[in-house]
Amino acid sequence: MADLLDTLEQTIRDRRLGDPATSYVAKLTARGRAKIAQKLGEEATEAVIAAIQDDRAELVKESADLLFHLLVLLADMGLSLDDVRAELVRREGVSGIAEKAARG
Amino acid sequence: MADLLDTLEQTIRDRRLGDPATSYVAKLTARGRAKIAQKLGEEATEAVIAAIQDDRAELVKESADLLFHLLVLLADMGLSLDDVRAELVRREGVSGIAEKAARG
Amino acid sequence: MADLLDTLEQTIRDRRLGDPATSYVAKLTARGRAKIAQKLGEEATEAVIAAIQDDRAELVKESADLLFHLLVLLADMGLSLDDVRAELVRREGVSGIAEKAARG
Amino acid sequence: MADLLDTLEQTIRDRRLGDPATSYVAKLTARGRAKIAQKLGEEATEAVIAAIQDDRAELVKESADLLFHLLVLLADMGLSLDDVRAELVRREGVSGIAEKAARG
Repeated sequence: MADLLDTLEQTIRDRRLGDPATSYVAKLTARGRAKIAQKLGEEATEAVIAAIQDDRAELVKESADLLFHLLVLLADMGLSLDDVRAELVRREGVSGIAEKAARG
Repeated sequence: MADLLDTLEQTIRDRRLGDPATSYVAKLTARGRAKIAQKLGEEATEAVIAAIQDDRAELVKESADLLFHLLVLLADMGLSLDDVRAELVRREGVSGIAEKAARG
Repeated sequence: MADLLDTLEQTIRDRRLGDPATSYVAKLTARGRAKIAQKLGEEATEAVIAAIQDDRAELVKESADLLFHLLVLLADMGLSLDDVRAELVRREGVSGIAEKAARG
Repeated sequence: MADLLDTLEQTIRDRRLGDPATSYVAKLTARGRAKIAQKLGEEATEAVIAAIQDDRAELVKESADLLFHLLVLLADMGLSLDDVRAELVRREGVSGIAEKAARG
């Protein structure tokens, strides 16, 4: 059974080729890789601000925006969330990952 | 069946209270919310750079780092990936989300 | 003789109390500290992208945006560019600064 | 009379070709454009956090780091602070800049 995030990923892929006039994904994709990446950066900044402000409701919203744009960016690079999962597992198994990930 | 990301999330929660000398999650958590948020911002910047450089392997790594630190931050705020999933669904269902998310 | 950046800083201070309907500075200031900081983060991301794209003309524009919003943020905190200059000098004189700044 | 920032800029240019073992500028420059840009992004995130935390002393430090790395990045692109000043002036004169800059 696919995770909701995978369903969202598939939806994003389907919409990439849609009409930019009615689809946000199609519109953003049409603006190019740099614009998608820029949006990812913006959402990360907003998540940082929400965290420092200790605003839980806002962090949930910004996290959703961040994940969403990460999926759009991965799709634009021909990558998937499964590629990211594989990388997480590769870092010494799921239980070990929390100790090894992102050092440095 | 839990998604790998949920398993990772649980691992992170377990490690939060661990020994900062041996656990990255415990160490980062001990440094405080701002430091966790800062790491999230850094990983986002690195993901942006990998995308602009069209470096797929690097984007996978940075995406893993970004997701990992997002989970650490959510845990520090008493939130979970399920809260983010609920927000994504709330935005008009999974199929509609791709059209409504992150505007403005 | 004041540097152009100081003149810009004074202009920004004067405009802070202006009419949000006609002044960008007044409008942004009225939206609050977090919004100003968010803009700073966004401009930094755009500068990063321009640099990676090796787009000199774009980096000049984004650097101008970045400096401008840094001045707006400093003003909102009751700080000035001179405070930043003093910090730069404090780091072992102007010639030494390039060796000491920003480590770690 | 040159502004302190111009003196700093010249120092940075001189150090670019120095010994990476003793010069931070030389070391960072040797790591490449992407690493310099990454540092700029990191310092911006730290400035954002300091601002949201209402920590004036910290914002001064992070602003110094941000300006410093902006100068290193400009130098790496063959650009100068004067190019940025020219862009700021171009946006309708110094007094007008505060109203026109960075919209959109």
